[in-house]
Amino acid sequence: MERLNDVLGYKNLKIYQNSDYFSFSLDSIILANYANVRLRDKQIVDFCTGNAVIPLILSRRTKAKIYGIEIQNKLAELARKSVEYNKLNDQIEIVNEDIKDFSKKYISKFDLVLCNPPYFKINERSSLNESYEKKIARHEIAINLQDVCDCAKKVLKDNGNLCLVHRSDRLMEILEVLRKNNLEPKKIKFVYENINKESTLVLIEAQKLGKVGLKVDKPLILYELDGKLTEEYGRLQKEVLG
Amino acid sequence: MERLNDVLGYKNLKIYQNSDYFSFSLDSIILANYANVRLRDKQIVDFCTGNAVIPLILSRRTKAKIYGIEIQNKLAELARKSVEYNKLNDQIEIVNEDIKDFSKKYISKFDLVLCNPPYFKINERSSLNESYEKKIARHEIAINLQDVCDCAKKVLKDNGNLCLVHRSDRLMEILEVLRKNNLEPKKIKFVYENINKESTLVLIEAQKLGKVGLKVDKPLILYELDGKLTEEYGRLQKEVLG
Repeated sequence: MERLNDVLGYKNLKIYQNSDYFSFSLDSIILANYANVRLRDKQIVDFCTGNAVIPLILSRRTKAKIYGIEIQNKLAELARKSVEYNKLNDQIEIVNEDIKDFSKKYISKFDLVLCNPPYFKINERSSLNESYEKKIARHEIAINLQDVCDCAKKVLKDNGNLCLVHRSDRLMEILEVLRKNNLEPKKIKFVYENINKESTLVLIEAQKLGKVGLKVDKPLILYELDGKLTEEYGRLQKEVLG
Repeated sequence: MERLNDVLGYKNLKIYQNSDYFSFSLDSIILANYANVRLRDKQIVDFCTGNAVIPLILSRRTKAKIYGIEIQNKLAELARKSVEYNKLNDQIEIVNEDIKDFSKKYISKFDLVLCNPPYFKINERSSLNESYEKKIARHEIAINLQDVCDCAKKVLKDNGNLCLVHRSDRLMEILEVLRKNNLEPKKIKFVYENINKESTLVLIEAQKLGKVGLKVDKPLILYELDGKLTEEYGRLQKEVLG
């Protein structure tokens, strides 16, 4: 079912969702918030944009042109409807394409790539009652981590950044694949549900041809032990709320 | 000046320190606490043991034989005095040797290696008024990270563990060097001074010939924002206090 939602209440920002597809997640909100958009950044691309929640949020922080790439036709259509509804046609362009094809045509064109990719390997934790439309957003069916990094490397200018959210338990693989693609991890931030929980989510900023040197950012802790939002997570949601 | 101190008040555990040398640090306490000593572990070795604070603490948790290796003669003597004072001669053996020489003689003999190595590269942040005795404990003069991992690989049995504390900003290098030496990172824990500070310290457990699969442990946050010890850090110190 299609519906028109608030982007966590962002003033004057609405987003179309459809319960048949993958709806935007808090991970995307956290990623959009973490990404460092530099003043000089003129061209941004969001791989696996889904219903374009990341481009929509970024449009409130930058005048740069933002591309959102989505392989699923129906999701790309939904994303375009949201872009039109918010009158952002001049800033955001939705491309219904495989990022592997897109990246061949945009060599060294982008300052910043964002990606909230499928987290799970094929067959890993696959839930049988998921629709194909949801599976492709959660599992590495159409693209995998190596594809994402290879495509990012292609479309990024030298010193351009890739900002990625992923599962912490794939950290070793993520760091290796980034380096293999000349994307040097510069900043990393671990997300913990609370201070007594292992980290499940990690945010990474890597720079194309960047110098070696990694900063382990302050943690993002989502909840206090009593279940309340932490100050930082509350602030993050408030910032998004506008 | 030589003095006899409490190991953070550990009941019936005293340690000799000498202000001319590197005194034990909280990093070693945190490492000794983090290290998972398995019931089956029979032989443990602490590289760069200094005045043997790690063997002393571990002696309260295990009956395994513990070697402490220290290249500096005067520190090794101090360590031996503490071992004798605490009547631990049967359990702890202090060896005054370069770990590179030690490890050639003990191939595949150990279940667990611990190491709080020198953190700084040569010339990095070197403070001119430090004595040579202190410099060798803080800078990679006598051994570097590659040496530590190479020696650990040699002395560890298959599936034996290396438990390491190091600086977070060298994380990329640490992970790479571990893997190059067939030491697979299995657990990693980031230490933050408080939730608003970058991580400066990281604890890593790697397994010789271990399977791929990393757990990002719950964070260790030392202080509340108001400067008080956090519950976990307080508990850790209390556990050490006994």
